[in-house]
Amino acid sequence: MDYNAVPTPEACYADFCLIPVGTGNVSVAEEVAQVQRVLEASGLKYTLHSAGTTVEGSWDDVMAAIGKAHAVVHQRGVVRVQSSMRVGSRTDKKQTAEDKVKRVEDLLGNKS
Amino acid sequence: MDYNAVPTPEACYADFCLIPVGTGNVSVAEEVAQVQRVLEASGLKYTLHSAGTTVEGSWDDVMAAIGKAHAVVHQRGVVRVQSSMRVGSRTDKKQTAEDKVKRVEDLLGNKS
Amino acid sequence: MDYNAVPTPEACYADFCLIPVGTGNVSVAEEVAQVQRVLEASGLKYTLHSAGTTVEGSWDDVMAAIGKAHAVVHQRGVVRVQSSMRVGSRTDKKQTAEDKVKRVEDLLGNKS
Amino acid sequence: MDYNAVPTPEACYADFCLIPVGTGNVSVAEEVAQVQRVLEASGLKYTLHSAGTTVEGSWDDVMAAIGKAHAVVHQRGVVRVQSSMRVGSRTDKKQTAEDKVKRVEDLLGNKS
Repeated sequence: MDYNAVPTPEACYADFCLIPVGTGNVSVAEEVAQVQRVLEASGLKYTLHSAGTTVEGSWDDVMAAIGKAHAVVHQRGVVRVQSSMRVGSRTDKKQTAEDKVKRVEDLLGNKS
Repeated sequence: MDYNAVPTPEACYADFCLIPVGTGNVSVAEEVAQVQRVLEASGLKYTLHSAGTTVEGSWDDVMAAIGKAHAVVHQRGVVRVQSSMRVGSRTDKKQTAEDKVKRVEDLLGNKS
Repeated sequence: MDYNAVPTPEACYADFCLIPVGTGNVSVAEEVAQVQRVLEASGLKYTLHSAGTTVEGSWDDVMAAIGKAHAVVHQRGVVRVQSSMRVGSRTDKKQTAEDKVKRVEDLLGNKS
Repeated sequence: MDYNAVPTPEACYADFCLIPVGTGNVSVAEEVAQVQRVLEASGLKYTLHSAGTTVEGSWDDVMAAIGKAHAVVHQRGVVRVQSSMRVGSRTDKKQTAEDKVKRVEDLLGNKS
């Protein structure tokens, strides 16, 4: 198989938490706000929650946006940036972030 | 230093996404619902979002709850369970999940 | 079901990467070394790699060791500590870290 | 700032663990072997360990390789694929995977 000819997934979600390292500042809120501005500029759908941000789109667009987020935080003078990510792709159907939460809530409503 | 005498943190948050492996079922909603029931029974504060669940409390309570979530999914017949987690602890102040999101939104409201 | 009576898993592995936040120091090597000392004192099996440390044992022992690692880094004056973790448990068999790598290497040797 | 004009980082590392979901097979070794083949074809430097694989290179190359890994596993018939990732970038210096481990081992040798 020619692995390099394989296209990256057309759709995925990535949930990520970006941490600036070595800033001397315990708060990361400034950097998280900056990340939201990068995502806003990307045109992708994203949602902030208390432990990260979920962004949805094609693999290449999502990863470019998160890479730009690293780069923008570097431009602010942070020399080291670390992200923890969860990334999912599926080929059977499109499922939005809202669908996933609703599915679980329906199960809990019916059975708990 | 006697490392074993060191107590685990009094407060932390853990954001986790539990995946049942080898079930033959593409949907993980049943297992996620089960996890919410374990967390409800734990008495800890938790929030479901589309890419995981955030739970707050003492280190030992939070980790016991997530361990019981693995165990309950095993009891349903899933032989392998994998979780991705982000865990944070801080000693300077208590900051709730809501505080964290509000802090970023305030910054965006003022500056964007 | 009495969820609180469910025991946590007897065996698991956790692969984690601990990041001190707000230290003003780009290097995290001092903290990572400290984490190795906590793990050594725990008596658990662990392996350092370039992107984290893998530790194996019962759920409670593994999570207590990682919690103590957070606490020891806090004791050094770091007010905020963040870890990214992957945790796996299985009930069908015991598989060591070496077994997992060997399994993949065997497949690659036979087929690649 | 024109966020979309910001380039992604020239260098990064990503440590990732890819999980096929809904396969009915408890073992993930076949898929992990497949991922190694994709990485080999990418020409990037990578290292397999028991809890994941670390790959190094430019942000775009690294993310394209991991995206192709998802796609190849989908091509094998797995409809859902989930990865947990840790990604780091820094602008102050290049540090290889080996450097990072050596730095910690030196500290432990000197001080433990």
